[in-house]
Amino acid sequence: MKSFQHIKGFILIFILSSICTLAHAQVTYNITQEDALKVMLAAKEKAEKDNVLVNIAVVDAGANLKAFLRMDESYLGSIDVAVKKAKTARYFNIATGDLGKLTQPGGIIYNIEVSNDGLISFPGGVPIKNDDGEIIGAIGVSGGTIEQDHEIATTGALAAIE
Amino acid sequence: MKSFQHIKGFILIFILSSICTLAHAQVTYNITQEDALKVMLAAKEKAEKDNVLVNIAVVDAGANLKAFLRMDESYLGSIDVAVKKAKTARYFNIATGDLGKLTQPGGIIYNIEVSNDGLISFPGGVPIKNDDGEIIGAIGVSGGTIEQDHEIATTGALAAIE
Amino acid sequence: MKSFQHIKGFILIFILSSICTLAHAQVTYNITQEDALKVMLAAKEKAEKDNVLVNIAVVDAGANLKAFLRMDESYLGSIDVAVKKAKTARYFNIATGDLGKLTQPGGIIYNIEVSNDGLISFPGGVPIKNDDGEIIGAIGVSGGTIEQDHEIATTGALAAIE
Amino acid sequence: MKSFQHIKGFILIFILSSICTLAHAQVTYNITQEDALKVMLAAKEKAEKDNVLVNIAVVDAGANLKAFLRMDESYLGSIDVAVKKAKTARYFNIATGDLGKLTQPGGIIYNIEVSNDGLISFPGGVPIKNDDGEIIGAIGVSGGTIEQDHEIATTGALAAIE
Repeated sequence: MKSFQHIKGFILIFILSSICTLAHAQVTYNITQEDALKVMLAAKEKAEKDNVLVNIAVVDAGANLKAFLRMDESYLGSIDVAVKKAKTARYFNIATGDLGKLTQPGGIIYNIEVSNDGLISFPGGVPIKNDDGEIIGAIGVSGGTIEQDHEIATTGALAAIE
Repeated sequence: MKSFQHIKGFILIFILSSICTLAHAQVTYNITQEDALKVMLAAKEKAEKDNVLVNIAVVDAGANLKAFLRMDESYLGSIDVAVKKAKTARYFNIATGDLGKLTQPGGIIYNIEVSNDGLISFPGGVPIKNDDGEIIGAIGVSGGTIEQDHEIATTGALAAIE
Repeated sequence: MKSFQHIKGFILIFILSSICTLAHAQVTYNITQEDALKVMLAAKEKAEKDNVLVNIAVVDAGANLKAFLRMDESYLGSIDVAVKKAKTARYFNIATGDLGKLTQPGGIIYNIEVSNDGLISFPGGVPIKNDDGEIIGAIGVSGGTIEQDHEIATTGALAAIE
Repeated sequence: MKSFQHIKGFILIFILSSICTLAHAQVTYNITQEDALKVMLAAKEKAEKDNVLVNIAVVDAGANLKAFLRMDESYLGSIDVAVKKAKTARYFNIATGDLGKLTQPGGIIYNIEVSNDGLISFPGGVPIKNDDGEIIGAIGVSGGTIEQDHEIATTGALAAIE
């Protein structure tokens, strides 16, 4: 089933490449509302299992907010952090914690956080991919430790390809 | 059942009032994450039934984002409008369409829309109340006509007391 | 040639619909850099012919800046107006002048301009469509009269399907 | 030809200096739209040759956006970074990478990045000079490694005096 989906993916890419060259347009794959809900609720379930109070944000391929949930008693300040983690992960197609390794003092992109109305460069933001490995959005989680946030975000992101 | 809940509510208020006078603190009734999800999904279901593509935002008693969903192919510009409708409805405890009657040229609060980082004063934002009529949050809907948005928001808000 | 492209478009839509239902993803059509440049330069040429000094902005399907040009001696204040016109046209898939008919005092979406970090609701912003009529971006023009801006924007937008 | 242009430049400066003292006004040398396009397209060509996906921004002597292009599939987050690199390079008449040497912890202008709505202090922003070495604008490039971005920006900037 999985390998069939891969073949399907390659065929899709081939057809689209051919047609799109003719049609003069890029084709972007974008997370659906149903998958965004699935990702968000998978993250919520994981957070509840881990006994962590978090905010969960899902953005689409255009880095626009697609779904959001704030758990009761979670930090108020985590609303914006969760959204910015999701946006950051899609802005640069990277887990936010990996970006943070490059933004430290002496790092190659030190202080990039001041751009794009504020980026978050510590763990908790993760790109969401489809079955063919294409990035279709991102999830950001904030409220627990950075390890917890990252794990919850990863659990959520993986729900998109289940 | 319903009237029992009302009695339960009055007893609760009485007890809390007594305690709070002693404790020198306000008690805020706040929408829960489960109710926020319920409200959001009731609005989504109504929108799907009406064949309208909308963005749905739910804020809590503190006017902070609690839940959000953007339907596929809905307007990009409606993300912010839906959030602002929900915030506006809670900022002033009013349906946004009713606020709009006061903000027109010559109106008593003309152009108040420029405050609070932008208010929306046309229909689609509605306060969410609990069984006792206390405002516990608000919902904002954007993407359809103002009549559709208001109806979807109202359907969502009522799901909180079901 | 034109009708062949239409048939091609229908086949494309059919194939994509089938595949995408399986692949759980939306497909978005997006303007390419080459078409964005073509649109921008067609608008520039029209502006030069009309002897008007304008700013020209092109955004993609995600309302993100794709191409921009400021003509010498054009208004400094028109940089932001041109960008906001393009974004507004894509945010709501509408010519900005048509939006403006609804945002006047007494209009159904009065003062929506305060949302989305500022919308522009007078003429000069126009959606850009591909051969199949799908919106792939938008163009915003500012610097001349609103009639001139709209005409230049329309000329630019049409260059995408030439 | 080149040396003739230099003589021409000196004569021009002499005449302008004389006139301006009388006229009580500064003269600003400013990049033209044609040169901004030339700079942008030279950077694009270099990026394509190097197989890098970048965003390219050109600002004029007033640090206002003059030309912009986003290559297909380049990072969404690089739009703002490219614009901020160009602005930063002109705000302080310096290559952004050189500014970054002074903004590190313990540096003489530590954290200046938070000013001016966000500065970028790593490589990729370069002032654009005319034949006489006067700064007439700046270019910012973002999307590749910092070395690639700087090289593409430099290639673009040099196109202004060709």
